Order: sequence, then C-alpha cells, then structure tokens
Amino acid sequence: MKVTIRVRVWNEYRHERSNPAVKEIYPDGIHQTIARALREDGHDADTATLDEPEHGLSEEVLRQTDVLIWWGHMAHDEVENAVVERVYARVLEGMGLIVLHSGHYSKIFRKLMGTSGGLKWREADEKERIWVVNPAHPIAAGIGEYIELPQEEMYGEHFDIPAPDDLVFVSWFAGGEIFRSGCAYYRGQGKVFYFRPGHETYPTYHNPEIQRVIANAVRWSAWSGGAKPQYGHVPVPLESLSGVEN
Amino acid sequence: MKVTIRVRVWNEYRHERSNPAVKEIYPDGIHQTIARALREDGHDADTATLDEPEHGLSEEVLRQTDVLIWWGHMAHDEVENAVVERVYARVLEGMGLIVLHSGHYSKIFRKLMGTSGGLKWREADEKERIWVVNPAHPIAAGIGEYIELPQEEMYGEHFDIPAPDDLVFVSWFAGGEIFRSGCAYYRGQGKVFYFRPGHETYPTYHNPEIQRVIANAVRWSAWSGGAKPQYGHVPVPLESLSGVEN
Amino acid sequence: MKVTIRVRVWNEYRHERSNPAVKEIYPDGIHQTIARALREDGHDADTATLDEPEHGLSEEVLRQTDVLIWWGHMAHDEVENAVVERVYARVLEGMGLIVLHSGHYSKIFRKLMGTSGGLKWREADEKERIWVVNPAHPIAAGIGEYIELPQEEMYGEHFDIPAPDDLVFVSWFAGGEIFRSGCAYYRGQGKVFYFRPGHETYPTYHNPEIQRVIANAVRWSAWSGGAKPQYGHVPVPLESLSGVEN
Amino acid sequence: MKVTIRVRVWNEYRHERSNPAVKEIYPDGIHQTIARALREDGHDADTATLDEPEHGLSEEVLRQTDVLIWWGHMAHDEVENAVVERVYARVLEGMGLIVLHSGHYSKIFRKLMGTSGGLKWREADEKERIWVVNPAHPIAAGIGEYIELPQEEMYGEHFDIPAPDDLVFVSWFAGGEIFRSGCAYYRGQGKVFYFRPGHETYPTYHNPEIQRVIANAVRWSAWSGGAKPQYGHVPVPLESLSGVEN
Repeated sequence: MKVTIRVRVWNEYRHERSNPAVKEIYPDGIHQTIARALREDGHDADTATLDEPEHGLSEEVLRQTDVLIWWGHMAHDEVENAVVERVYARVLEGMGLIVLHSGHYSKIFRKLMGTSGGLKWREADEKERIWVVNPAHPIAAGIGEYIELPQEEMYGEHFDIPAPDDLVFVSWFAGGEIFRSGCAYYRGQGKVFYFRPGHETYPTYHNPEIQRVIANAVRWSAWSGGAKPQYGHVPVPLESLSGVEN
Repeated sequence: MKVTIRVRVWNEYRHERSNPAVKEIYPDGIHQTIARALREDGHDADTATLDEPEHGLSEEVLRQTDVLIWWGHMAHDEVENAVVERVYARVLEGMGLIVLHSGHYSKIFRKLMGTSGGLKWREADEKERIWVVNPAHPIAAGIGEYIELPQEEMYGEHFDIPAPDDLVFVSWFAGGEIFRSGCAYYRGQGKVFYFRPGHETYPTYHNPEIQRVIANAVRWSAWSGGAKPQYGHVPVPLESLSGVEN
Repeated sequence: MKVTIRVRVWNEYRHERSNPAVKEIYPDGIHQTIARALREDGHDADTATLDEPEHGLSEEVLRQTDVLIWWGHMAHDEVENAVVERVYARVLEGMGLIVLHSGHYSKIFRKLMGTSGGLKWREADEKERIWVVNPAHPIAAGIGEYIELPQEEMYGEHFDIPAPDDLVFVSWFAGGEIFRSGCAYYRGQGKVFYFRPGHETYPTYHNPEIQRVIANAVRWSAWSGGAKPQYGHVPVPLESLSGVEN
Repeated sequence: MKVTIRVRVWNEYRHERSNPAVKEIYPDGIHQTIARALREDGHDADTATLDEPEHGLSEEVLRQTDVLIWWGHMAHDEVENAVVERVYARVLEGMGLIVLHSGHYSKIFRKLMGTSGGLKWREADEKERIWVVNPAHPIAAGIGEYIELPQEEMYGEHFDIPAPDDLVFVSWFAGGEIFRSGCAYYRGQGKVFYFRPGHETYPTYHNPEIQRVIANAVRWSAWSGGAKPQYGHVPVPLESLSGVEN
C-alpha cells in the first residue's frame, strides 16, 4: 500500500530575509529545508509563504494538501482570518496539520486547541534534551531514547494546551524547565501534531533526528480513510420507535 | 472545608417566552429551575439571560462567578463576541463552565473545544438512557448505573468534540443512536463539563437525577486552588547555564 | 514502504468442536476465518490454538509474531500462566495484541489492563450497531458511520477497563445498553486493541466490515520502530551536576 | 459537606530500622511522618507496616480504609500475594490508593497499571524541580508553579506506565532527565495517584508542599459516591426486543 502524501510546508519567511544570522542557517528559508528533507523521505513536498497571495494557501492548494506544516512567529497577526478558517475547515475534514515551535501562538493552533497557547520562553543558547515518553507511538519511530540539541530557545511550562491525546515527547532544558514537546491530537476527521523545537537562530531543522520526527508526523497525521460524518437533522430513526417507547 | 460556590445560570430564555408548551414546563425559564435546584443543594445560585444588558455577564458579574452554566439554542448568533471572549478568559483563569444540551453549538463551547460541535439530532419523543461509563468520577456521584429519561430529543454521533479528558456518560437512544453525553475537560486553570440532556420541550431539568449531575458538575468544575501560571519572557534561568552547556 | 506483518491468530477452538451450531458457522474454527481474511488483505497470517503444545505460543513462535489476535471464552483458566507471562513480555517489548469479544476475561487482557474486565452480557439475538466515535483514527478506515450486525450477544456497561487511550467505537444494543466496543491502548513499546463483536454462534467474523476493522487494527498495532528503553541504574548523569547543585 | 477521610499509611518500614541515616530523618518511620501531616490536615490517619500480621492490612482494616498510601522499596517481594489481591479488590470497589516513590515497583502498582513500572534511577543528591502541567487539577491546589527539592534520587523516563488519565506533575532533574511525577488514574470505582518524590535518605516527606500534594491526593482519591456496577448475566433486556429486531 504505497501512498504518496502531499505535504505543504508553510513558513512565515520573514526572519530569513531580514536577519543575516538566520539567513545563513536557512538561506532559502526554513520551509525549503524541511521540504527537502521530506522529499528525501519520499514525500511530495511543496511550500507556501505568508507574502504570497492568500499566503499561498488558496482553496485549490489546500484541497490538494494532505498534510500542512506550519512555521510562524513574528507575523501571526498578518495571517488573514479567512485563510485561518480555510485551514481549520480542512483539518476538521481530514487534512493533517503539524505546528512547529513558535506556531504555538499562531491563530490556527489556538483555534484548534481552544486555549491560549501560552508558555514561558528564553533565548539563552541552552541545551534541550527531548525525551520519548511513549516509545510505542509511530511518531517516535527511529529515534533513540532522546534527541539532544546543543542549543535551542527554551520553552517552559505551564504550556496552555489541552492535555494531548498522545503525549510523545517531553523536553528537559539546562536552565531548569521542562516542556511537553510532542503533542498529538485528533480534531474532527483530522490530526494535529505540535512539535516544539526549531528556533530560527539555530540549525535545528538540519538535524536528521528532527527531520525524522517531522517525517513520522507527516505519516501519522495524513488522513486515515475514515468516513465523513453526517451532521444535522436525521428525522427518520434507524429503529422503529413504536416497540421501545413507553 | 465548607465552600460556597457562586453559580451563575445563563439561559437564552427565548423558547420559554415564545412557545406556550415550553412555558408550561418552565414558567420562569430553564435557568430558574436549575438555579432553584442548586440552591437546594446548598449553592449560591444566580441567573443571567441573553436579553439583559451585556447578556447579564458583565466583567463584574463574571468576576464573582465560580461556575457558569450555559443553556442556549436558537440565538447563539446573538451572543456578542465580546461577552464570549470575556467568558473564555474567565474559564482559562479558573471559572468552571457547564454547557448544557444545545449549547454544543454555542460560540463559547466551540471556541473552547476547537471543533465544530456538530452532531445528529431528531425530535421524536424517544427514550434516552444515560449510562455511567466512569463510576469513579465525582460527577457520577449518587447516580445509579444509568439515568432513564422517557422522552428527549435525540443527539447522535459523530459528536465533533475533542476526546474528553474524562468521559463520564454515554447515552443510548431508542431510535438506534449513541452519544457521548457527559464530557469533562481541563482548559487552562479552568474546567468544562458538557452534559447532553435538556431539550426545552421536556421536563428534564425537573428530574432529580439530572439535577444531581449538574450539582456534581458544579462542585467538580469550581476552581481547585492551583497557582496562576506566568506566561512570557523569563530571561533569567532557574539554574546556572555555565555548568551544563557544551 | 511495504511491510509484511506477521499475524498469529490464537483461538481457544473448543466451541467449534463441541457445538454443531458453531461448527456450522466456523467449520475450521474462528481462527481460520480471521486468518483467511487477513491473508486476503496481504498479511502473513498463521494460527495457534489452546490444545497445541504450549498453546501454540512457544518463545520461538512469539518471537516471529508481530501481531497476536486472541479469541478465548470457556477455557480462560486453562491458559498456562507461563504462556500469559510470555505474551505479556512480548507486548511490552512491541508485539501488537488484538483481543476479541469474550477475550475481555482472558488472563492476558486483565493483566494488561489492571482491571477486572467485568461487563454485562445477554444472549438474545439482538441487533448491535457499532458507531465510530473517532473518525480520524486509522482503525476506523474504510468503515461507514457505523457497522450494523443483525444479531449478536449483548455486552453492556459498566465495562471495567481503564479509559482507552483512544476510544474508536461505541456499540448500541436493541435491548437498551451501550458499550465501549473499540478501545486502543499503548502498553510499554506495544499496542493493544480490544474489539467487542464476535460471539461464536453468529457469523460475525465473516462480515467484511468486521474483517476490515481487524485488518486495520493489525496495521495500527504492529511495532512502530521506536527505541527500546533502558531501565535500571544509570549512575552517570548526562549533565555535570556541579554547575547546577545548590 | 464535611467528610472525614480514613487514611491508612502503609510503609515497608525497613530502611528506617536498619539504616541510621534514614532513622535520623524518619525516627518513627516514613509512615508516621506522613500520617502526622495528614492529621494536621484534618484527616483520620492510621498506619500499617510490612512486619505486622497480614502486613497490617486485614480485610477488616481495609474495609475501614478510604485511602491507602503505599511506600515500599527493598521488600516488595515479601508482600504476600493474598494481601495484594485484597488491596486490589478494594481499589476496584472504590478505595483510593496513593503510591509513593519506589512503590512504582510494588506488586500492587504493577498489577493496577498492567505494565512493568520500569524507569531509570540514580542516587546523586541532585536537584529535582516538580513542575505543574495541569494547574486546574485539584491535586495541584495550593502549590506554586513548581516544587523544588534540593536533593533527591533521580527517576528518569521512559517510565513504563499507561499514559495517566490526568498528568499533573513532570519533574526536571539536574542530571539531564525528566519524569512524569504525578500521575492520576481511574480504576474500576477507585482512583490511583502515583507521586514520585520521597527517597528514604532525604527529608522529602517533611516538606510542606509535598505534604500538601499528598493531602490533595487523599481528597481526590477518596471514593466519590458512584453506584456499584453490576457485572454478569442480565437475561432480561431493558427494552422489548420485538420492536427493533429485523
């Protein structure tokens, strides 16, 4: 059962163009680095960015997207509500969504979670160790007991999210905090995975283990083939009511 | 440790004034029936309705509300977004919220769930049997193995909600459907309970077992006394970074 | 990524030999019917039965089993504890386990759940309708909104299990009960799926939709490729303790 | 609604008698320190120890116990299976159980979890910071954003437990590990809470915040008043089957 998953990597793509330090790490943008890794993993990966018309996420594009990856940070507010609603509708009807790092404050993530997405943060070049807490989960495939990142931005609890349906990773930070770093959710017919690491000033998305987690999440979050539920008025009961009424 | 919980029962209060059949069952409105039962259970219960200024839910009122109960149906769209945001903020900071029946489509419930709240429905005077699936949960206290309602509106799956943190009740309907009827959630510092029964044309809220569940949910959802998390920038690490960096 | 999953279908295989009515439905035994369907789905499916030496589940056999399917009923007590321990150890190290119907009272299921597995039951040829409550879950792939079985044994709540990590199906029964029918669990590096239908006097395992669910569960429960955790003493810290101690 | 909860604090009580360093910290045993704190919190707290007849846990004693607290370490194997079965049965019928620290390897905890209880450990006097990840949960009442313990034994992931029904605390350790430290479960009519800290060579149970968590867990885990489910044969359907059969 060979299935090609059509992935669309969305990036705000601002830091890379305005900050030389970021540009050096991601010359073509974070989205291209992620998309290349996914292509090497056998997926059909395209990109889209904030400053394209409709942020590169037209109805047509989304219709042909199985899994959308989202990286945003400094311009969450510039994402048009109409596009957010469009992505939201597609997730509920089965499109996978992988929200990375600072996407915790994106409109789409907060809308799907129903919470603020708040957390603590600090940029101090500190070590992060991402521990697997569910070794049976497919998103942990091919990863050791933990992933070590020599330098990352710190995110600390409380992370204001609903308890994940599956908690896959928890991060340790040198400065004393912990964080629920890999959080899997079912929403409608769709699936959402939040994955913490990936501050723009570090080469995190060049790390093969991080790439592997994202590729695993792509496979996990793609539509599984369930039926589309029917909502609304169903006037005719499936069973005769005469025999069971009192 | 005697604690008085300040409950506010919010009702759209339209059906009762426009439909004589509903008025006969709830002459003062659904909110008054529920509030009376809660007072008899020892709570400090007040009411608020859609057509009051600010829908009866000013900042001041919400500040003095420990648990808000929500019944709405035909006028979800008339609830002002500013009030929805206000209630939402209060839930995340610890106010309990109990959403009843057709409140599944209210703005506040959909915002807190991150899903559409969609479901199947039918008005056919059919029997509902609400089974306890978690007998250890405090919201099932004092209830037998099930609650039987001779006539109710049917709600059927798929119910488009996140999987509850605790699933307490599942309903059987004579017409052939089932429904996750009692769903408990943590959101931020707050708690949310969705409880299915209560169509306006049936005397459901006069039923002592239904009243008991609502009273249980009030106790469960009231703020537990946890600390308010601090979100945002924490520039100073809790631990010295020199010793652990590489 | 074509993977052949090695499935072993274990059956008590007593009813089929002692009860002509059952033999008529499953002439070669329930195990053969299930194994045939899995082979048609592309899996490498073998069988094992209670009365074989070591119940057909030697260390060697289990070592070569990716997913074990379990059907037992009248002879749970005859399953040797040593074999139960062996299966248990294999699940924790990554073997998938699918427990069918009356297997809710098997030693292995109760051991993995930590609860009694108790439930209500009735043989009354009554209709079962198995509703999908998580349409995004891979075990619901290819199934409509529900599966209808014209006649089955009834199982009713309370079902004494831990709340599933993923609740996929809930059954409606004509006689008035509901039941959590499709329950997915992570245990150690392994996965467990309980699937309710399949009383020996009904042709349930000939039903293509039931076969599809079992095949889906095989794929879901097979080992995902995560790392084997190391347990026990780790005397050397990953970080120097000098810099962070007080 | 003033309810007196009858707590029984069970302790292996061996380290305190054989190791002078432990005796100095807990002259009367860990159980007495915990019981005293609970009495000050208004509970009716008694104790029981391994070397008493029936380990101090006769049928009669358990019958009069609402919540059992369990501390064991070096002598898990000496706990008689009959007593384990007795405690197990009481939990499923509603008794609360709080398992502390090295109790992760106790027979009763492993039996209730269905997993090995495995973890990593290290005795290196290292700092533990226990973060609240669910500030809405009653077990986090009265606690700040974290509890800091200057020296504790390290426990590290993977912790081989089922995903908790509610994950309340996650620990950070100076040496580089994290651990799910506060794990709440429903089992049958009962509730179980696992709480990590408390190595015998540290004064952890004298810490007021740790005492507060245990007192919170006592209140949370005490029986809630739900109905006792009936299991087994229910030959008579609740609904007439004639009207709904096909």
